[in-house]
Amino acid sequence: MSATLGELAVRFGCELKGDPDTAVDSVGSLAEAGPRQIAFLANPRYRRQLADTRAAAVILEPSLADACPVASLLSGNPHVTYARIAVLLHPLPPPEPGVHPSAVVDPTAQLASDASIGPLAVIGARVAVGARAAIGPGCVIEAGASIGADTRLVANVTVCRGVTLGARCILHPGVVIGADGFGLARDGEGWIKVPQVGSVVIGDDVEIGANTTVDRGALEDTVLEDGVKLDNQIQIGHNVRVGAHTAIAACSGVSGSVTIGRRCMLGGMVGVVGHLSICDDVVITGLTMVSATIRKPGMYSSGFPAQETAVFRRNVARFRNLDRLLRELGARTRHADDTGQDDD
Amino acid sequence: MSATLGELAVRFGCELKGDPDTAVDSVGSLAEAGPRQIAFLANPRYRRQLADTRAAAVILEPSLADACPVASLLSGNPHVTYARIAVLLHPLPPPEPGVHPSAVVDPTAQLASDASIGPLAVIGARVAVGARAAIGPGCVIEAGASIGADTRLVANVTVCRGVTLGARCILHPGVVIGADGFGLARDGEGWIKVPQVGSVVIGDDVEIGANTTVDRGALEDTVLEDGVKLDNQIQIGHNVRVGAHTAIAACSGVSGSVTIGRRCMLGGMVGVVGHLSICDDVVITGLTMVSATIRKPGMYSSGFPAQETAVFRRNVARFRNLDRLLRELGARTRHADDTGQDDD
Amino acid sequence: MSATLGELAVRFGCELKGDPDTAVDSVGSLAEAGPRQIAFLANPRYRRQLADTRAAAVILEPSLADACPVASLLSGNPHVTYARIAVLLHPLPPPEPGVHPSAVVDPTAQLASDASIGPLAVIGARVAVGARAAIGPGCVIEAGASIGADTRLVANVTVCRGVTLGARCILHPGVVIGADGFGLARDGEGWIKVPQVGSVVIGDDVEIGANTTVDRGALEDTVLEDGVKLDNQIQIGHNVRVGAHTAIAACSGVSGSVTIGRRCMLGGMVGVVGHLSICDDVVITGLTMVSATIRKPGMYSSGFPAQETAVFRRNVARFRNLDRLLRELGARTRHADDTGQDDD
Repeated sequence: MSATLGELAVRFGCELKGDPDTAVDSVGSLAEAGPRQIAFLANPRYRRQLADTRAAAVILEPSLADACPVASLLSGNPHVTYARIAVLLHPLPPPEPGVHPSAVVDPTAQLASDASIGPLAVIGARVAVGARAAIGPGCVIEAGASIGADTRLVANVTVCRGVTLGARCILHPGVVIGADGFGLARDGEGWIKVPQVGSVVIGDDVEIGANTTVDRGALEDTVLEDGVKLDNQIQIGHNVRVGAHTAIAACSGVSGSVTIGRRCMLGGMVGVVGHLSICDDVVITGLTMVSATIRKPGMYSSGFPAQETAVFRRNVARFRNLDRLLRELGARTRHADDTGQDDD
Repeated sequence: MSATLGELAVRFGCELKGDPDTAVDSVGSLAEAGPRQIAFLANPRYRRQLADTRAAAVILEPSLADACPVASLLSGNPHVTYARIAVLLHPLPPPEPGVHPSAVVDPTAQLASDASIGPLAVIGARVAVGARAAIGPGCVIEAGASIGADTRLVANVTVCRGVTLGARCILHPGVVIGADGFGLARDGEGWIKVPQVGSVVIGDDVEIGANTTVDRGALEDTVLEDGVKLDNQIQIGHNVRVGAHTAIAACSGVSGSVTIGRRCMLGGMVGVVGHLSICDDVVITGLTMVSATIRKPGMYSSGFPAQETAVFRRNVARFRNLDRLLRELGARTRHADDTGQDDD
Repeated sequence: MSATLGELAVRFGCELKGDPDTAVDSVGSLAEAGPRQIAFLANPRYRRQLADTRAAAVILEPSLADACPVASLLSGNPHVTYARIAVLLHPLPPPEPGVHPSAVVDPTAQLASDASIGPLAVIGARVAVGARAAIGPGCVIEAGASIGADTRLVANVTVCRGVTLGARCILHPGVVIGADGFGLARDGEGWIKVPQVGSVVIGDDVEIGANTTVDRGALEDTVLEDGVKLDNQIQIGHNVRVGAHTAIAACSGVSGSVTIGRRCMLGGMVGVVGHLSICDDVVITGLTMVSATIRKPGMYSSGFPAQETAVFRRNVARFRNLDRLLRELGARTRHADDTGQDDD
């Protein structure tokens, strides 16, 4: 796919500084892009690479136009403009409509005529697959599940019984939606399984990364609202609700019955303890444990940065006796915290 | 499925306060259940919802009977009674016995006549599948593995060569049992792979959550004893032994050659360092690192709760110099720990 | 498979103390090996088991020869010698060459004549599979991917479009290579997906554990160099480069655009924050957060060891006010760290 800078400026509403007839056919990084490629600058970390770029053009903020040695497309949000141009220049091959002969489709399933069912996919009883949806190779959709229009399950995805997915979702390989939540009742020294009779309801425009798991509810449904973005290897427990447009980075785990608000951002390897809630517009940095309800928007942390091991171990040895040591030194007893968190 | 309160009281040995002819057909939460549903109250967190419930009846402890505005089933263990009633009211559709024509079954496999082999499952040479066991769509069972009676592999599960699963186990989608352990021998600047010649032996009534992995032993077998319950996204390393009825929450990782006792509970995202042991009846709270053998039952922790980032960072800056700062302040040098843990 | 101690000594260049005609047919542990088995001693932790071993022979360092009650094979690197002998005695059944009739292979794929394509595997358009490579049951290889000679994908592995794997790699079940990286551009309260137009390039002799995920690059490729060893349940973000012979233990996560050097070792559940680099020969202990570039070889940590919960909670309560408490006690303000790490 190829486009001229003039076409891109018109289509995406940018001011162009440079020759409108210059053609580009792919995107590239500031450091590596060549004369048929377009780059962008959004993260100040890469600002120093601008002077040496050999890209055909750079998408950047108007204030940086003068520092750009090549043509520029000026945008108030260079990252978004870049994303839109990248979609245009790098279209994914559209899935082939129809059912691959090797797929196993229950006769009661309702497939849109232009849906795509890939090789060796399994579609259970009463499953609904919407217009232009694509179920990739090796996917298993259990009975009664519903897949919205234009939603794409890449490969080897499992969607369990009765789960509902909205429109324009993307589920990457290895994702499991709607497995039983971890519901156990203690009975003597053992455990009795608590049936998980809720389901999972996923809104529109949700993206779920490879090998991420979202459990079905114990009673009510587990819910991911519109626009939620989950990275890889995340665990979402039963009865959780994640608010619209919240993004969670890889390897995080959200325990059962947690409610997370809208527009939150959770860093990687964050753990959220069960039965609490996080309000809208909260940022949790990586490797943090959220163990109390958060009622105040803002940024929260508990991840410790690495130190040289020898130094760290001395500090840890002190920490392990910290209360006693401070008492001996005459420190005042602890104050109430005022961190926007409550015990729940 | 429907039952009267009278039938439930008799069947599950509860005292009934209310009309024995009232019929219920499903379970629901205290807050959401309607007049054809039965709810339960076990977690004191939800006690305040009791007064407003519109359920047909509530399963609860005898001491709460008078506070219940609707009929009640009195039980010394409401959670267990609830679980049993939920199984009765919400039976899973039984798997269809027989081999789906799209499955690939080695002629030397031994399948019970009433076992169920789902679409596009692969059953290797000399595999044994017990009575009423169900191998779901997309599962792969490698040569020589053995699946006990009534065990269910939901979908896209992989069981590697020679692994043994007991009876009444449930393996959720994406589970991998018996992949090679992480065995490497350093050779110059590189690594030589150490063959993993042990296997995995899993007892009866074990449940394993979605995308959890249990590695085969390097020499002896990795063992999960009867009644072990593993949540999603857990990693169990080679040569590990997990004692009967121990439950581990999601995203935890147990390194190689660890022994965990019976009736332990590990919270989410717990990490256990290799070659140590944890005695019976230990509780590890979420996000804790176990790096020394634990010989005393009790509760252990090392997960830090989130703080507002600005405050946390000031505290961390102090922690990083804690040993020096305390020395300057004249704190006594460290004492022996007395935490029930030993260096191993 | 069987061999005499004499044959093993000659083949692997060890000095033998004992009867060269003694035959062994398998490996075993020091504690459990019987008279037809060979054991090894490399980890000093198991030194005390030597006196009671009933193995036919033990592979160990020359300095321990006199302490060995049975025959011994003396090696400067007993673990490596053991690994080589174990490969000899426990050969894996070679994969059957040819395409299983249930596999779905695109006619444009290029398969070596002695490659093995297992049951219900899916091979996309223009995929190349090298000599003696084995694609196990249920694997999905998307269009344009390339699999090197002697590489083995065990089962249910997903390799996305255009990914390149080198020779002699092993990918365990559930691995996903080349799913889209987590690229999002904020647009109002929602997110726009940033196309991930890079790929993944994996060198020779790379082993990747069960359910590990390696994302494709946003622009340039994600790269695992030769000899990299990844354990289970690891997440490697987009644009990451992992240097040759680096080994990473289970459940670790490496955020996008990180560069890790050669011969590094990362423990389990380590988290590496995005856009930083770690130099060659760095060791990170388990549960550590790397949040700044590391320029000095050595060992780094931030994982806290477990304490009894009651003690830990008192210490945490102090930590949460640590800066204030130390200020009140008159501690000097913080010093510059000197830990080999830089803000990036």
